[in-house]
Amino acid sequence: MENIFLNKAIEISLESIKKGGGPFGACIVRDNEIISLEHNTVTIDNDPTAHAEINAIRTASKKLGKFDLSDCVIYSSTEPCPMCLSAIYWAKIPVVYFATTRKDAEEIGFSDNLIYEEINKPISKRKIRMIQLNKSKSLEVFEVWKKYENKIEY
Amino acid sequence: MENIFLNKAIEISLESIKKGGGPFGACIVRDNEIISLEHNTVTIDNDPTAHAEINAIRTASKKLGKFDLSDCVIYSSTEPCPMCLSAIYWAKIPVVYFATTRKDAEEIGFSDNLIYEEINKPISKRKIRMIQLNKSKSLEVFEVWKKYENKIEY
Repeated sequence: MENIFLNKAIEISLESIKKGGGPFGACIVRDNEIISLEHNTVTIDNDPTAHAEINAIRTASKKLGKFDLSDCVIYSSTEPCPMCLSAIYWAKIPVVYFATTRKDAEEIGFSDNLIYEEINKPISKRKIRMIQLNKSKSLEVFEVWKKYENKIEY
Repeated sequence: MENIFLNKAIEISLESIKKGGGPFGACIVRDNEIISLEHNTVTIDNDPTAHAEINAIRTASKKLGKFDLSDCVIYSSTEPCPMCLSAIYWAKIPVVYFATTRKDAEEIGFSDNLIYEEINKPISKRKIRMIQLNKSKSLEVFEVWKKYENKIEY
């Protein structure tokens, strides 16, 4: 079954090219049933976050009415980039199947590997400038959160 | 001005708690004008990807009608998690201001720091199981992408 679901993700990555998206697809499955099957729509939707896995997580969460997808598995045509891998952690999806790698993606012009390298660097060494200000004001909000009794944790 | 915009992000992180969201806010600014100001809506929208920065990038991209936000700056109440930091790279935003850190977020129960540690590990050492299959089928799609003349690169 794993090959079949992964092939669904790969097939939609090919369709994506024809529709004007990037060459990536993802499929989320629960109990051998496809919950969502999406492709990259960054250039179609003018949304830099609209990678296949993010789209598939958003669709699956909406469909299942919950933000915890720990009962699901994700199939990605390519190894998830750090944005999508982190989203998989936040969604608590425990298993990822993938076909091509970040290095294969780099060879056709995508930044996945570069971003993996960047986020591993100390803040001061990154290409992006990161500046810390106003910490105490934000810490006050965290104190409110700690004491707030009606919070929904995730 | 930097303090003012960062404070807007912090103020909306406090409003977020009252609305049932997580205690995080983000503000995207271009030429000293606020383009988007959003808070975390993970639990409100049942969407594990709906962090403040992702929401702010999606709103700004939609408003400006483009996926390249290299003329913008982002202000985050807390250091972006790896999902949001990677999204900032994909959006090509060159400067990030932030207040509290991943360690502060960890102290109030959020997994930002854990996910930073996880994505730095080799695939085989992660808590999430990652399995590679069907590489050649996905590489065939990459060959189509390489030769496709109408592609929009991002």
